[in-house]
Amino acid sequence: MHNMDDIETEEILTCLRITAHHPLHEIKNVFKLINFNKKEKHLAEDALKIGRDTKSCRISLYDQRVSRVQFSIRAFRHFNSSQLFFEIQNLSRRGKLIVNNIALEYLNKVELPKKALVRFAEFQFLVEKEDGESTENFETFFELARAPCQEVLYVPSMSPVPETGLLINACSIPPYCSSQTPVEMEECELK
Amino acid sequence: MHNMDDIETEEILTCLRITAHHPLHEIKNVFKLINFNKKEKHLAEDALKIGRDTKSCRISLYDQRVSRVQFSIRAFRHFNSSQLFFEIQNLSRRGKLIVNNIALEYLNKVELPKKALVRFAEFQFLVEKEDGESTENFETFFELARAPCQEVLYVPSMSPVPETGLLINACSIPPYCSSQTPVEMEECELK
Repeated sequence: MHNMDDIETEEILTCLRITAHHPLHEIKNVFKLINFNKKEKHLAEDALKIGRDTKSCRISLYDQRVSRVQFSIRAFRHFNSSQLFFEIQNLSRRGKLIVNNIALEYLNKVELPKKALVRFAEFQFLVEKEDGESTENFETFFELARAPCQEVLYVPSMSPVPETGLLINACSIPPYCSSQTPVEMEECELK
Repeated sequence: MHNMDDIETEEILTCLRITAHHPLHEIKNVFKLINFNKKEKHLAEDALKIGRDTKSCRISLYDQRVSRVQFSIRAFRHFNSSQLFFEIQNLSRRGKLIVNNIALEYLNKVELPKKALVRFAEFQFLVEKEDGESTENFETFFELARAPCQEVLYVPSMSPVPETGLLINACSIPPYCSSQTPVEMEECELK
């Protein structure tokens, strides 16, 4: 048992709560390499890469439609703020990455809003940020959603909207989305 | 000899021309791990880390005042642009990183202007970007400067000036800078 005098003061870590959905996850087992319902700690200075390559990616997806490295999430601090914020960058030369209703091409990036629906191939990741105290580490927590996440058609005013970014309209929403009308973002239906 | 039919079309790579200075480089040999006057190619999707750790850093500095990983330079593309741009982020928990006259603390980041004077510990890196065509790769080219680089007191209007960033005024300029009056940035005096 640790002596309470010796251990370091515990800091609450900023958490990225990621609710993941794939329409064929039970057949293709695309999430076989994900540890669901378990907090995983990451160094704030390291980019969190997500893709098919198990060597270079902290989060690996078992699906041939996913690029070797599909995208990255990186922590940063705004000036005069001790909070962690995150930026998401598309690292796939082939596939688009949709963040809420903004389409990111290869090497495009945006700041992740507090709540963001990230789509690539047939995947949906609803990413929600819970603020913490530490600036040196953050954690991720994956949950599996059986039903698709609700679609975001309006970007909240706090979200970054690049002037020249391609906004995705209702016509381009994939057919498995549960609503074709503008709605507020809702929680995914958890398994 | 290659058959010209078989080889891929050559693309001009965006080049970061880095003129490096350290007042004690001849005594301490701080640049012993740098390949001067030689173009080095990098993948655009990988962060270029600069620091003391030879394992995690592509560019290693042999100086105990430098952090294991001091800072990173990362390529990105603005929306609807095929050009590569770069962002610089301070990854040192101890030392500030000065980019022109903006002080970056741990995890702060700014977009690199076309020409930037980057300072950390006793190092000065004058970073100049030469645009290329490829979006998949870029290159670096290091030159050694015997004399310190000229100081930038005015940030050019194209440079990012964070509203809340700490601007460095003339009083905080280290004594080895060659001018105490506002000047335009000049080339370093090459060895």
